Amino acid sequence: MNNPIEQRAREEELVERVVRSFDACPDPRLRQLMAGLVRHLHAYIREVGLTEQEWGQAIDFLTRCGHITDEKRQEFILLSDVLGASMQTITVNHQAYGDATEATVLGPFFVEGSPEVPLGGDISGGAPGEPCWVEGTVTDTGGKPLAGALIEVWEADEDGRYDVQYDDDRTAARGHLYADDQGRYSFWAVTPTPYPVPHDGPVGQLLAATGRSPMRASHLHFMVSHRGCRRLITHIFVRGDELLDSDTVFGVRESLVKGFERQPAGTSTPDGRVVDGTWSKVQFDIVLETGSKRLA
Amino acid sequence: MNNPIEQRAREEELVERVVRSFDACPDPRLRQLMAGLVRHLHAYIREVGLTEQEWGQAIDFLTRCGHITDEKRQEFILLSDVLGASMQTITVNHQAYGDATEATVLGPFFVEGSPEVPLGGDISGGAPGEPCWVEGTVTDTGGKPLAGALIEVWEADEDGRYDVQYDDDRTAARGHLYADDQGRYSFWAVTPTPYPVPHDGPVGQLLAATGRSPMRASHLHFMVSHRGCRRLITHIFVRGDELLDSDTVFGVRESLVKGFERQPAGTSTPDGRVVDGTWSKVQFDIVLETGSKRLA
Ligand SMILES: [Fe+2]
Ligand SMILES: [Fe+2]
Repeated sequence: MNNPIEQRAREEELVERVVRSFDACPDPRLRQLMAGLVRHLHAYIREVGLTEQEWGQAIDFLTRCGHITDEKRQEFILLSDVLGASMQTITVNHQAYGDATEATVLGPFFVEGSPEVPLGGDISGGAPGEPCWVEGTVTDTGGKPLAGALIEVWEADEDGRYDVQYDDDRTAARGHLYADDQGRYSFWAVTPTPYPVPHDGPVGQLLAATGRSPMRASHLHFMVSHRGCRRLITHIFVRGDELLDSDTVFGVRESLVKGFERQPAGTSTPDGRVVDGTWSKVQFDIVLETGSKRLA
Repeated sequence: MNNPIEQRAREEELVERVVRSFDACPDPRLRQLMAGLVRHLHAYIREVGLTEQEWGQAIDFLTRCGHITDEKRQEFILLSDVLGASMQTITVNHQAYGDATEATVLGPFFVEGSPEVPLGGDISGGAPGEPCWVEGTVTDTGGKPLAGALIEVWEADEDGRYDVQYDDDRTAARGHLYADDQGRYSFWAVTPTPYPVPHDGPVGQLLAATGRSPMRASHLHFMVSHRGCRRLITHIFVRGDELLDSDTVFGVRESLVKGFERQPAGTSTPDGRVVDGTWSKVQFDIVLETGSKRLA
């Protein structure tokens, strides 16, 4: 058994040696990011006394996350989400954008190149679910309507699955549209329902092993962009959903919880569409941060 | 801009919420590992003010590490190595094994099922390099010879490549043998030479971007096992190697630096083998920790 003081010195000397190895990094921000990563990673290993077997399990876990990740499945985002790291990153960056609509996690299911729909159009693409009318405005933090703002939306169907989780290459329950010249938008979607994050992979195994639920609170994803504004990535959640307090990716913000008002069967819709059965409607007014230097 | 006190409270509340999500974890050690991971990961994100763009780059980096990793390439081990995390894990665990031979990193090139060679046999398998005679003993920390100890060895050839880095499925410069009934062993290998870690992937890009060299100090890998003892994973390094102070995986321990004595061409070898040109010899006496509970 080593002397505890010597042992500590040995561990600390290693940390400093690794930090110093980044001294010649030409990019000061990258140097800061690496030095901080090394300090926290080593502090973690020392604090928990990570065993070599546990280290091997971590390597194996990351390897399995990598191997299940492809164009349609992003296990590292999912891992970041269930550890709250995605939401913490958003929270840290939100500081500068206090008056804008709050952001939440991107999640692993955004896909570039969704179908365009006209204002008032239907993004469901045949996805099963109760029709939901979504409307609102897009303005900047100064109150100016953002004509032509790009609104991208995506969601799970009522069976709790995104289109990319089916094997048949369908595109459904995702689309994009542009706000009109007064910043107004509207579209048909399906009423959000709860669903589990993909739990047939390593992150699912981690949730199971740690006694956590894979369920997310019901939500509809938005990504909203306009030249000169910070792009907003967010969701809206369903008021009254029992899962609001236990969302497995910690994505819920009170300001993003909206009333999805259920309408009786047979009632007339805002655009005269004939709906079989009930439908719902929700209003979501979006505020983008103006003139941000950070266009992340 | 949020009030800084509110902002801090918001960030800290998220950390606690994520930690609490593991409260129902049935395995106390796993709960501890996850809680510590969450605290350090969130502290890092907050301390450096990780931007959403940097978060995205990290996700992309991990994804690329996963995609390049296969049976013969382990980018996550390499990443852990160049961040000193592998060596810190070993250092933390070494505390209990102070009298045994020191451990160092496994590295990404160990392969199960290497060829067996007899005592005094040649593990080079035709790998190019100067012949090197390696001999020593295997004992436990009580000084008892460990008859029949399994000694697995592997190394790069003089071109700086492991067999698995060639495309032709060769097996070379790796093998295993068993100590004799007095714990003695000997074999022919090739004199270790410096080589770069694989730097054609994401970890290599990280090293380049941060101004770090990919070079490792010259070494010969050992994995030594005997029933009732802790398995030892280590290397021996070459005294006088200029890279001893800048090994890119921080693996060098003074106790593992050995004299590889170069012998002139035409001199007689310990086993009467005829060698064209120079050869070297090294002695490495191995001590395994006895009766460890941790067989990691
Ligand atoms: Fe989602
Ligand atoms: Fe090596």
